[in-house]
Amino acid sequence: MSQDRVIIFDTTLRDGEQSPGASMTKEEKLRIAKALEKLRVDVIEAGFAIASPGDFEAVKLIADTIQDSTVCSLSRAVDADIERAAEALANASHGRIHTFIATSPIHMQHKLKLQPDQVVEQAVRSVRKARNLCADVEFSCEDAGRSEIDFLCRIIEAAIKAGARTINIPDTVGYAIPHQFADTIRQIIERVPNADQAVFSVHCHNDLGLAVANSLAAVTAGARQVECTINGLGERAGNASLEEIVMAIKTREDVLGVHTGIVTEHILAASRLVSGITGFPVQPNKAIVGANAFAHESGIHQDGVLKHRETYEIMSAQSVGWHTNRLSLGKLSGRNAFRSRLEELGINLTGEELNVAFARFKQLADKKHEIFDEDLQALVSDAITEVDEKVRLVHLEVASCMGEVPEAHVLLSVDGEEREARAQGSGPVDATFKAIEQIVDLQTVLQLYSVNAITQGTDSQGEVTVRLEKAGRIVNGNGADTDIVVASAKAYINALNLLLAGAYRAHPQAADV
Amino acid sequence: MSQDRVIIFDTTLRDGEQSPGASMTKEEKLRIAKALEKLRVDVIEAGFAIASPGDFEAVKLIADTIQDSTVCSLSRAVDADIERAAEALANASHGRIHTFIATSPIHMQHKLKLQPDQVVEQAVRSVRKARNLCADVEFSCEDAGRSEIDFLCRIIEAAIKAGARTINIPDTVGYAIPHQFADTIRQIIERVPNADQAVFSVHCHNDLGLAVANSLAAVTAGARQVECTINGLGERAGNASLEEIVMAIKTREDVLGVHTGIVTEHILAASRLVSGITGFPVQPNKAIVGANAFAHESGIHQDGVLKHRETYEIMSAQSVGWHTNRLSLGKLSGRNAFRSRLEELGINLTGEELNVAFARFKQLADKKHEIFDEDLQALVSDAITEVDEKVRLVHLEVASCMGEVPEAHVLLSVDGEEREARAQGSGPVDATFKAIEQIVDLQTVLQLYSVNAITQGTDSQGEVTVRLEKAGRIVNGNGADTDIVVASAKAYINALNLLLAGAYRAHPQAADV
Repeated sequence: MSQDRVIIFDTTLRDGEQSPGASMTKEEKLRIAKALEKLRVDVIEAGFAIASPGDFEAVKLIADTIQDSTVCSLSRAVDADIERAAEALANASHGRIHTFIATSPIHMQHKLKLQPDQVVEQAVRSVRKARNLCADVEFSCEDAGRSEIDFLCRIIEAAIKAGARTINIPDTVGYAIPHQFADTIRQIIERVPNADQAVFSVHCHNDLGLAVANSLAAVTAGARQVECTINGLGERAGNASLEEIVMAIKTREDVLGVHTGIVTEHILAASRLVSGITGFPVQPNKAIVGANAFAHESGIHQDGVLKHRETYEIMSAQSVGWHTNRLSLGKLSGRNAFRSRLEELGINLTGEELNVAFARFKQLADKKHEIFDEDLQALVSDAITEVDEKVRLVHLEVASCMGEVPEAHVLLSVDGEEREARAQGSGPVDATFKAIEQIVDLQTVLQLYSVNAITQGTDSQGEVTVRLEKAGRIVNGNGADTDIVVASAKAYINALNLLLAGAYRAHPQAADV
Repeated sequence: MSQDRVIIFDTTLRDGEQSPGASMTKEEKLRIAKALEKLRVDVIEAGFAIASPGDFEAVKLIADTIQDSTVCSLSRAVDADIERAAEALANASHGRIHTFIATSPIHMQHKLKLQPDQVVEQAVRSVRKARNLCADVEFSCEDAGRSEIDFLCRIIEAAIKAGARTINIPDTVGYAIPHQFADTIRQIIERVPNADQAVFSVHCHNDLGLAVANSLAAVTAGARQVECTINGLGERAGNASLEEIVMAIKTREDVLGVHTGIVTEHILAASRLVSGITGFPVQPNKAIVGANAFAHESGIHQDGVLKHRETYEIMSAQSVGWHTNRLSLGKLSGRNAFRSRLEELGINLTGEELNVAFARFKQLADKKHEIFDEDLQALVSDAITEVDEKVRLVHLEVASCMGEVPEAHVLLSVDGEEREARAQGSGPVDATFKAIEQIVDLQTVLQLYSVNAITQGTDSQGEVTVRLEKAGRIVNGNGADTDIVVASAKAYINALNLLLAGAYRAHPQAADV
């Protein structure tokens, strides 16, 4: 790989999933992995294989499927973790084991209870073990920000000697300031004698809004891998956002002098997919992928943008996948048009899934004039996530009448048996949820309820996200319908089905990188 | 002011309002201005006085009311603009006129059709004129990014000599890279002979996600004013976010060596107020003010955060206004408790507004178990924005019944006269909106419909935002109710009332700074 190519390492499926409420099923993770492959992300961190059986299966499924991108699993610097990661990656066309150990005095003393010499020894042993199982090994210095630079240089030199090809320096707490972070990276690269035998990587958190700037500063100091996530998803204020990193590098190649291999035209589709699956909205003023990112209010500005084309290789809305005309399909569109439009959106359906989705499309087209790409995405995510449904909505009836307490009448099919209930609530959605709970009786806690009109106009579909928690397990259910109450019921039932599917897991023990 | 104090200049009400869909009424602007004053923002840019009668009134109202912060109006470098700005600021306890002219060859030649000498002359004349009307004058070089540095230095020197106390260098298109932007600012300050007689300011846009980093880089190069907005609101991907700038400066005083005068504990309340008024959601992974910004998933991380307290003067959730216990009031809370809780939230109501809000609080407490701060904020913004209502919702009845087309029956009071309509739609909300449109017949276009559950639990209120457009005028209506359909109707009617109020204006001609 050339000296001026920056490797894009996406950790939406690992660090991104560590956000409270962003848990995903393995099928959802696979859909995101496919979108990342289409973007030509260099490395996809698919999970932390030893964290849970669910994590293991997700990493394995993605490793088995993805061809072009390297698939990576995280592992602590211990044998069991490394073996489990290797097992999950066994069928990968390009696999990577990413192993980490803490290098700060506080962590070494209190968490690891090891002397610095022992930490170096364990890192070396783990990198060697990983190299025996996998040609591509990345090593991270956990809590690098509070580590002594002499010790960092020593352990990095040893890890490279043991066979690590990539060395990652995280800013775990997101408090670095760009010029200072660049100095640290520059010093390390200068001082490690065998630095030329590895790619240096950074992994920045966004607690002060500086994750992207810190990553770019590190690139100017010699880093050639950036760890990032779609929409900047991740713990707390998230990670560096992939779309901002990639577009800053592309737009300001004149200053930064590097490039990536990302096909930027697929950025928006990936952003929407991740937002839809996690239920995390993207704010309108988010750079690159926010609804207003390319909306120019004033004549003066439009003029300015046109003129800037003369000066810079400027970013256009099209270059990140915004279309001016997003009208997509209508009532008379056939099955082939439907399937090929989905393929253009990065969604490949076959067999029963395609049948279910097409039937829903026809139902929707009866109710709604114009079908946009966003409608299709909602409808499909609905069709896919409902495949294994134990609970199904058969009938729903509820009225909104000012001055009266709403009562919902709900008929569900539970394992094929029809059951009904009536309940009152503070509104029609509340009454509906209570009636459903009466039947299913899972005693969940509603953590989030949000609705977005998917497209403009009063006949648009409402897409509802319902986040339920039960004994530490958190799921996001989605439902779309032109009737907001019906969409809410679908989302609630979808969440219940995810909980009932049981394959769902508690949050993984998060890694501090 | 000390050498290491950074002046916080908030432009939420001017550049923030230029976002498509973020128009605000003058009452809403005043509420935000009061929240900014409470934050101890140094300068509040209240609008662009000559842009429209609505802008003029908003600037004047804010200038008449705000005591502690400087209130600023934008103006082009022409007499009429400057006079209008001075008129709006006449009663300000501290007023500032912010005048700008383009300094790039392209703009001077094509837009201004002036020679460089003439541009300098016009700038000088305008700054002098402004200084005759107002002691505090700021001068901005529009399109500084494409201007020649020699010319910038020349016009800045002349503007300072003419009496400008603040010189602003905008990164209008948001494409600067921090180290390069810092170099530019450093060069200008070094080369302008009378630079010590002015405060240098920056105004950064966020198109590549670097607005905060560019602003901080400029501070390290000597800038001592940062222009920013709450939640990073602003054209396209927005401006530098006030909360990130302020908390980066506070948390990393060790590296940056400067401070601000902001009372950070009021940041979250200001963020919620702006989000509520504009209908722009804050994404959960937004730094500082996102719902997950301080949510720590894993045990390892919580431990890490505790330990980091030892190293840095670290940011705590409390320091930006997050409370661990946000339970606020219940059914038995009296009028005084209600009023003082509102005061703690930065909302001061008296007379009729307080009566309306308290009555709504009692109604809500009948339906809803626990009343949280967010409920109060929604309820109050509802009470305040409905004061001048021509259209009022009297009765609403609509059913959701799967397999049937919903029909809404709506009874409105229009100028005191009751009128009713029935309409069918693709869902209960659509049917309700169509029935309302039948009665009011304004032929608006629905641009956005969004719902958020304000608090957790199934009995939470839904807060609906409806954005309507009519002939270039855009308004955001808000409505809250435990019944989502009723909340939607209220939001729609609120938007119609805003349009009918007529005081509403088309978007101002936006300034390119």
